[in-house]
Amino acid sequence: MLEPNEWFTEIVEDEGSAFSLKVTEKLHEEQTPYQLIQVYATTGFGNLMVIDGFVMLTSRENFLYHEMMSHPALFTHSDPQRVCIIGGGDCGTLREVLKHPGVASVVQIDIDEGVTRAAECFFPELTNANRDPRARLLFADGIRWVQEAPAAGLDLIIVDSTDPVGPALGLFSGDFYQDCARALAPGGILVQQSESPLYHMQILTDMHAAMRRAGFDTTRSLFFPQAVYPSGWMTATMARQGASLEAFRTADARDKPFETQYYNAEIHQAALAQPEFFRRALAQALAV
Amino acid sequence: MLEPNEWFTEIVEDEGSAFSLKVTEKLHEEQTPYQLIQVYATTGFGNLMVIDGFVMLTSRENFLYHEMMSHPALFTHSDPQRVCIIGGGDCGTLREVLKHPGVASVVQIDIDEGVTRAAECFFPELTNANRDPRARLLFADGIRWVQEAPAAGLDLIIVDSTDPVGPALGLFSGDFYQDCARALAPGGILVQQSESPLYHMQILTDMHAAMRRAGFDTTRSLFFPQAVYPSGWMTATMARQGASLEAFRTADARDKPFETQYYNAEIHQAALAQPEFFRRALAQALAV
Repeated sequence: MLEPNEWFTEIVEDEGSAFSLKVTEKLHEEQTPYQLIQVYATTGFGNLMVIDGFVMLTSRENFLYHEMMSHPALFTHSDPQRVCIIGGGDCGTLREVLKHPGVASVVQIDIDEGVTRAAECFFPELTNANRDPRARLLFADGIRWVQEAPAAGLDLIIVDSTDPVGPALGLFSGDFYQDCARALAPGGILVQQSESPLYHMQILTDMHAAMRRAGFDTTRSLFFPQAVYPSGWMTATMARQGASLEAFRTADARDKPFETQYYNAEIHQAALAQPEFFRRALAQALAV
Repeated sequence: MLEPNEWFTEIVEDEGSAFSLKVTEKLHEEQTPYQLIQVYATTGFGNLMVIDGFVMLTSRENFLYHEMMSHPALFTHSDPQRVCIIGGGDCGTLREVLKHPGVASVVQIDIDEGVTRAAECFFPELTNANRDPRARLLFADGIRWVQEAPAAGLDLIIVDSTDPVGPALGLFSGDFYQDCARALAPGGILVQQSESPLYHMQILTDMHAAMRRAGFDTTRSLFFPQAVYPSGWMTATMARQGASLEAFRTADARDKPFETQYYNAEIHQAALAQPEFFRRALAQALAV
């Protein structure tokens, strides 16, 4: 039995599953205008950030998510210079993006400054690139920011958001994808976290369909493990107009001038492989 | 909070994590001479089999494990005809092996008949191939069986065991691997479940090293998701003498004459991709 005061537990009620981490201390708790942020010390995963009761990240294995939200899309684009991150307040994705020497500017727009301030205190390894002169941190509504962005001014939009409930819901909508399509330059790529292939096939197929309706003629999901997210299995979905999402700068990925813990050229290729059940479900959904 | 009578929970004490499934009923409980077998009905994962408190399989997603324990090794071998499964009492791996028309015989040796009897009752979809005339089920000590097996009489040995504690401990030893090497015909392949890359790098590197000391000059891990196993991320490790484990019968895998839910030729290739942290740890372990 899990003593409630010794364990943080996230229950996925619809699936009848739960994941728990043993905690020793609550390090931080803050109700911001947008959400409840909590940080715990755990026995096995380093620090744990929780937002509105959902696990956001741990020190131990956030590298999986942050590397896969950034490097595959960056190495798929031929020359990504202008990057925007919607959400991403913990700055882990930003740190990975800034590892690419060709990136000229990254704007990060998270609605909640509280997330970034908590990350600075409890996940400093993620925020240590924030002073890079190429990075600009805005605390504002990302949906509106993309609406108002100049047309064709971005090479890459990364949607590093919470799940499609509450403030993040609008990030899973056709209107938002249309705004992204407009804001992207030719060859530009949108990539968004897209939940678990085991639990959330409906969200995944809806996202592919909505992206295509918004004008992205190619969409492709990336698969990767993530112990602390529901089912331990995660996806990010890329969308693009008029260019492939399968080919990538293989030689550049192989000779990347920076270290990673999970990503490499083989992992990139591997993440594109579609399980049989996924391939069938997606083909059926897009054929309708 | 998880009410103990509503949830089955497996705690990984060393890692400070736990995974829980919501249960509605205990369908079966039996203390065999070897272990405690329990079967529960869950709300989201179908039936759940637990052995000595460890999750063995669920109706919903055992396909991931069973497909990845069988098809990659079978499609790597040029003509696998004689297969042996050590453990595997739930018969899910056996079912997948028997899908290959070229397989002439499969011997399954599980020490505990209770597992197979429970699977017949509560996972009948896994045991429905057991009457195939090519299949032979033995309930005996797999370690001794391999010791006494004729030399060079097998094309594939699949070690589908519980974790390296209790009765399965001997299956993770150098002596056992030497017996496997002797029992395999030229080109033969050994494949064994090898735990989580996030939690069990020591088990993984020890296994690679022990297999190599036993005379297998090539070893290679396969990576795949598995929601109900610790960390949600799993490996199987293949070992072989004098032949590659990277190349496989791609065209045959692409045109396979049977259905799968996870495995396909792209997934096979993808499962071979080694994460950076794994590649580094393994290279270091094998260099010592």
